Formats: sequence, C-alpha cells, structure tokens
Amino acid sequence: MPTALTVIETTDSTCCSPITSGVMSDDEATSLAIKFKAMSDPTRLKLLSLVAATQDGEACVCDLNEPLDLSQPTVSHHLKILVEAGLLTRAKRGRWAYFALVPGALPSLADTLQA
Amino acid sequence: MPTALTVIETTDSTCCSPITSGVMSDDEATSLAIKFKAMSDPTRLKLLSLVAATQDGEACVCDLNEPLDLSQPTVSHHLKILVEAGLLTRAKRGRWAYFALVPGALPSLADTLQA
Repeated sequence: MPTALTVIETTDSTCCSPITSGVMSDDEATSLAIKFKAMSDPTRLKLLSLVAATQDGEACVCDLNEPLDLSQPTVSHHLKILVEAGLLTRAKRGRWAYFALVPGALPSLADTLQA
Repeated sequence: MPTALTVIETTDSTCCSPITSGVMSDDEATSLAIKFKAMSDPTRLKLLSLVAATQDGEACVCDLNEPLDLSQPTVSHHLKILVEAGLLTRAKRGRWAYFALVPGALPSLADTLQA
C-alpha cells in the first residue's frame, strides 16, 4: 500500500502500519492505543474539532472554554492529554497558550484504519 | 470531499462528519468517542488486526486466543466490546462464534480523521 508507506516516511507522528496488514506488534498496539484513548472522550474530540476548524490552524486556550461551556482548568486538563498523546502541539506566547494539530497525526491515524 | 460523502451514504456505520469540518455536535462526539474507546486498548487493536488480516474476512473465536496468548474468556470479553462499539460483527455457527469487521466501519472512522 504505497500511500500508507509514503505517509510513514514523511511524518513524525506515524506509529503503526495499517490495521489490515497483519498482526500488530505490541509496540504498535500500545502506541496506537494511547492515541485512541486520548480520543475516547467527547470533550476532547470537540476540542480537536475546534482546533482543526480554526482558520490559521491554531487556537488560543482562551477561545476554547466558551464554545464547550467548560471551565478553563477543565479545558486545560483535556488539552494536556491531547498534547501528551501527540495529537496537539502547545506554544506559549505571552499570557496564553496556543494549540495546533500535530502535522500528519490525524491523517496518519486515518491511514492506519484504512482497509 | 466526494470520497467521504460516498462512504457516508453507503455504510451503516458512519456517525460523524470529518473532524476538521467545524465544531462537532454532542451526538457526533459521543458516538465517535464510543468507537475510539473500544480501540483504546492494545489487546483490542490486536484483535481487530487479526480479524482484518484473515483471508476470508472472518475469524473463529477459537483461532484468536492463541496468537494473543490470552484465555478464551478474556478474548471473548474484548470481542464483545468491539461488537458493541459497531466495529465487529458476530455470527454463531455450530459450536463457535465467528467475527468479521463491520463493512465500512474503519474506513468511515478514517474519513472522520482526514484533514
């Protein structure tokens, strides 16, 4: 599957070969499970979609709590899990932290799921 | 994205629009989170990959415990979660249960993750 291989070679976030390519190794399964665990919460999925939908690809933490009707500490907690799972980047500028999708992370997960 | 729309129209397993298309609804996020939660465990990911890699697309439960070095009750527990999440089908024939990927379920999840 050349497309999947291309992505594997050109992104830093890829961990795993396609789920349909054979029995997954322990390391691959563990690495992939961490990402899916971060995405197994509706609030975190909505945060990912909010960040992904921003025009410049970056969202200030100060703009994320209102659309979800959650406190900023709660939003920060969920953002931290997404950063630790390698799905979001975090950049501190002045008073606020800004979050963006890790380039290639979601497409790489998508490639892993393609049959 | 015509490909994504085609999948959405032709499978029963699609729940959600692409994660990059805007803020996700509560229902979409909840439905998607259930699927990712089922996939947030290394053993369940390996089970999915074992089923997906079978030549005829179907695996007997009797053939799944040995490659994972797990007891059959443990394997059955994980398979039940994957069936309930809409990722695997289960068919009982004679003494054994047979598992297959729900058609379109993984590609549909992949479409949701495409940027």
